[in-house]
Amino acid sequence: MKESPGVVDLLGVLAYAELSAFARMTEDATSLAPTLADRAALSELAVAEYAHFRLLRDRLAELGADPEAAMAPFVEALDSWHALTKPADWLQALVKTYVGDGIALDFYREAAKRLDPSIGSLVDEVLVDEGRSAFAVEQVRAGIEAEPTAGPRLALWARRLVGEALSQGQRVAAARPELALLLVDPGADDQAEISRLFAKLTEEHGKRMAALGL
Amino acid sequence: MKESPGVVDLLGVLAYAELSAFARMTEDATSLAPTLADRAALSELAVAEYAHFRLLRDRLAELGADPEAAMAPFVEALDSWHALTKPADWLQALVKTYVGDGIALDFYREAAKRLDPSIGSLVDEVLVDEGRSAFAVEQVRAGIEAEPTAGPRLALWARRLVGEALSQGQRVAAARPELALLLVDPGADDQAEISRLFAKLTEEHGKRMAALGL
Repeated sequence: MKESPGVVDLLGVLAYAELSAFARMTEDATSLAPTLADRAALSELAVAEYAHFRLLRDRLAELGADPEAAMAPFVEALDSWHALTKPADWLQALVKTYVGDGIALDFYREAAKRLDPSIGSLVDEVLVDEGRSAFAVEQVRAGIEAEPTAGPRLALWARRLVGEALSQGQRVAAARPELALLLVDPGADDQAEISRLFAKLTEEHGKRMAALGL
Repeated sequence: MKESPGVVDLLGVLAYAELSAFARMTEDATSLAPTLADRAALSELAVAEYAHFRLLRDRLAELGADPEAAMAPFVEALDSWHALTKPADWLQALVKTYVGDGIALDFYREAAKRLDPSIGSLVDEVLVDEGRSAFAVEQVRAGIEAEPTAGPRLALWARRLVGEALSQGQRVAAARPELALLLVDPGADDQAEISRLFAKLTEEHGKRMAALGL
């Protein structure tokens, strides 16, 4: 069990990622959903993100950390990501939910591998919700079936989502070396390891795109 | 137990009121909260509204009604209310939460009186959350103490919130006579009864303003 400053950083970045995902998904649901039922379905996913935020915030407090201070260093990078990836329509919003959730889950899995049992039970609770993305997958696949030209357009969109995520991620890794060190094997060549982690995230992303039919 | 079309209308208007309150409070929390802790606190209240929405939607489905169709007639009036009462700062957002919640709770109480036991347990579940508005009350009182000129400004704001609510309420009552009839004693003079109900809502609102120190 590592109890470095990196743990607080990791919980802090995940907490703000969940809080900001909650806000943006709610906004997208409200402004882009084609029906009230769709709006409720995406709002439901947003509320699940808020529940994850609550778990992370409470865990930070249990560790004696100030949750606000732990989140603060990551607000700008995550807000920038959201500002640079504002969906223009409902299918873009769903792809963003799926891609964003997927990248977050990859981070939880890395955390579970390296920090267990410190935050193991928390990660378990978050991963239980994984099936929720089925809603986004079904809707996107149906959308592409109904309008095949949407496929290439959404594939480009997904590429942009990940590109902007990796770019903000590199910024954060450079600014928070403790966090970066937490995610790589001790004693390894940091820069090379971080690059390998990013390559892995990209690979997992590719699998999710295949699930969407993109 | 009345099982008139008015019941579906009542659950429909409350369901969309909760869904739209969830969205607007989340938006206000994200754009106006002065700290991340305040943002989380208002988001928490928003998530509670979503939980109420879920109860109402499920109850509509249990009654054999289509939740979307039940909400549809009220979307425009509630969206108009939110558009006309967009808070300009954090204290306005909190007063809006408190006033909006209060009016909604008054409606739940009327519903409980007249529809029990049809939706009694649902109303009980919603009313359990009543204490939540304490957060808004404390923050607004502290805000006025810190800057006394905020008081008269917020009092005007609250007056506008209620004025716009009554105006949209009159529109809805005129368009949905079944709903209006549900909220007044059978056989009474409808128009006079509706006016008395609105007078009562205004009176309850006055008590809440006193609690805020306005």
